[in-house]
Amino acid sequence: MNRAEFGFGMNKSDKLKNEIIENFGTPCAVIDLDIVERNIERVQKICDDAGVANRPHIKTHKSPIIANMQIKAGARGITCQKLGEALVMADAGITDIIVATNLLGAARSGSLSALQRRVALKVCADNPVSLTLYAEAARQADRVLDVLIECDTGQKRAGVETPGEALALAQIIKQDPWLDFAGILFYPSLDSWPETQVFFDEMSSGLAELGLTAKIVSTGGTPNFVNIDKLNGATEHRAGTCIFNDLMMIEAQVASVEDCAFNVYSSVVSRGGENRGILDAGSKTLTTDSGDLDGFGLILEHPNARIDRFSEEHGFLDLTKCNHKPSVGDIVRVIPNHVCVTVNMFDQLVAVRDGQIQSVIPVAARGKLV
Amino acid sequence: MNRAEFGFGMNKSDKLKNEIIENFGTPCAVIDLDIVERNIERVQKICDDAGVANRPHIKTHKSPIIANMQIKAGARGITCQKLGEALVMADAGITDIIVATNLLGAARSGSLSALQRRVALKVCADNPVSLTLYAEAARQADRVLDVLIECDTGQKRAGVETPGEALALAQIIKQDPWLDFAGILFYPSLDSWPETQVFFDEMSSGLAELGLTAKIVSTGGTPNFVNIDKLNGATEHRAGTCIFNDLMMIEAQVASVEDCAFNVYSSVVSRGGENRGILDAGSKTLTTDSGDLDGFGLILEHPNARIDRFSEEHGFLDLTKCNHKPSVGDIVRVIPNHVCVTVNMFDQLVAVRDGQIQSVIPVAARGKLV
Repeated sequence: MNRAEFGFGMNKSDKLKNEIIENFGTPCAVIDLDIVERNIERVQKICDDAGVANRPHIKTHKSPIIANMQIKAGARGITCQKLGEALVMADAGITDIIVATNLLGAARSGSLSALQRRVALKVCADNPVSLTLYAEAARQADRVLDVLIECDTGQKRAGVETPGEALALAQIIKQDPWLDFAGILFYPSLDSWPETQVFFDEMSSGLAELGLTAKIVSTGGTPNFVNIDKLNGATEHRAGTCIFNDLMMIEAQVASVEDCAFNVYSSVVSRGGENRGILDAGSKTLTTDSGDLDGFGLILEHPNARIDRFSEEHGFLDLTKCNHKPSVGDIVRVIPNHVCVTVNMFDQLVAVRDGQIQSVIPVAARGKLV
Repeated sequence: MNRAEFGFGMNKSDKLKNEIIENFGTPCAVIDLDIVERNIERVQKICDDAGVANRPHIKTHKSPIIANMQIKAGARGITCQKLGEALVMADAGITDIIVATNLLGAARSGSLSALQRRVALKVCADNPVSLTLYAEAARQADRVLDVLIECDTGQKRAGVETPGEALALAQIIKQDPWLDFAGILFYPSLDSWPETQVFFDEMSSGLAELGLTAKIVSTGGTPNFVNIDKLNGATEHRAGTCIFNDLMMIEAQVASVEDCAFNVYSSVVSRGGENRGILDAGSKTLTTDSGDLDGFGLILEHPNARIDRFSEEHGFLDLTKCNHKPSVGDIVRVIPNHVCVTVNMFDQLVAVRDGQIQSVIPVAARGKLV
């Protein structure tokens, strides 16, 4: 007895899979617009309730269309990680942009000054070399550049590690006619918010002595929404992953499977014996970024299948724990471990709503490495 | 005393670094044409000496310009992993193409039949579902499709695992008026060449009984060049990584640092204390594909620095073992662990020769996932 005889006709999900593969082939990146919109509203409400502005990080979706959906829902502006991303967003009419990293390559290639001529950017620095390059770019653009100081309170990523270092940079900014002090950028780990408060308070006193105030005090990260009201003085929050969510966000207990808007549709292209299967989504599609999770993604149709390892264009499945195993030709939907790096492998997202294909959204800022 | 006083003026390498960052910013993908040409000649000679045809896998460079350099040097044709890659290569005039994977997505989206109408492709299968889809695509294209049977002799990747299964597929191909049996595709592991010979001999007998012969018997892999004369009956070899090489190939003892043609030029954008540094090349540039090596790439200027971990746009350096530590603003050159997936993150390669920028080569088949 096959499924149809048992009373299961082709359901909406099967119909969509066929439409996806017939129109786009596999692997294909698909987003559910209902979930995207729900995620946008949810995040905006969290920020509104906490009284901080929402400044989504576009590194996750890299799409001006989605950035404008976020702004329309109430976001103050956007965060980018690359000057090239900011350029794509500016071309779409978005002008309130923080670029949240030291921009050395873009400053020295002239692309920073070129964009600064068009849009008053807010950039970030954690060292004097960046400030020297920024001042030169601002001079070339003939427009003063707003600079935030990036501060590290325990993550050991970018950022100065003491208020003293931060204040030394603020002093340089104050003295440079081409730079304006715009504020402070934090990325606290989940448990370093008290330390962040101490850092911020000490820095605020020092800034007051310099006659400066931080107009922007930015915190970041999707898992940190649970801490959104914990830094007294914060003015805005920037988070990226929450637009789509992924297995890392489920692991961090800030999302459930129903909140994951992004799937890779992939074909089962081979079966190697009883307990092996092969997807047409490999490391060039899902990426090897495990996010410290077990396996490389959740297959919605076969949650007990483990995406075990990759070649470049194949995902190798361990089906040992599956009672119902996939067949060659089946199309499955995969939630990736880390959606930000997976979206970045695609040139476009197919947007669906209620099981129907609605539009194709270019990942317009993909590949903007500088 | 600084370097200039000590007698080191700006050398050719420093001058090139400045030209790279001023013209392209960082991170930037750079290839050395002298090394590329040497690698092409070396591989062609290995194949010529062994009496097998060279059919380079273009997944590494994804560039028709470089594919045509390989063909000009004597390669019989090329290997692709995706139909979209084959399309880009066909657009550049290359017509002798094996696509070395089950093409379910491309078959069902119509792109296989569309290309088959223009170019007589050679495709691969390890199951009957693929053959059914191929026959339908060939019928739509109104041109018989050449099919190789992919066989696995121990790698546990794609491919049928027994000569019996392979012969069953050969029989289906023989009986289908839209399919022609074109040969056999092997990807032996380094130590499974004797098993591959046994598989091939048994299959050859079976094929003879069916009245079929394998026109193409293909082996693969850069590390397998050491085994190139070990399969009696092999007609050609396909390898990709050898065009550029990487740390995995050095680890496999088939290349040295001097054979690595591809570098990511990256700026040191931050230093977090004595033993930390940050590159502007993160997981969206170098990728998290470790290739089972320690760290994520070799920094030529600081071989004792360890690229420890990534965020999306930052590479975090452990400088504990460096006596001479990099400064913010320094430009360094990184050989990646796995060059195939790193090239795939870039839209273009800057080609240099003798320290001079020669041209910009588009990674034209990047992002061709279907």
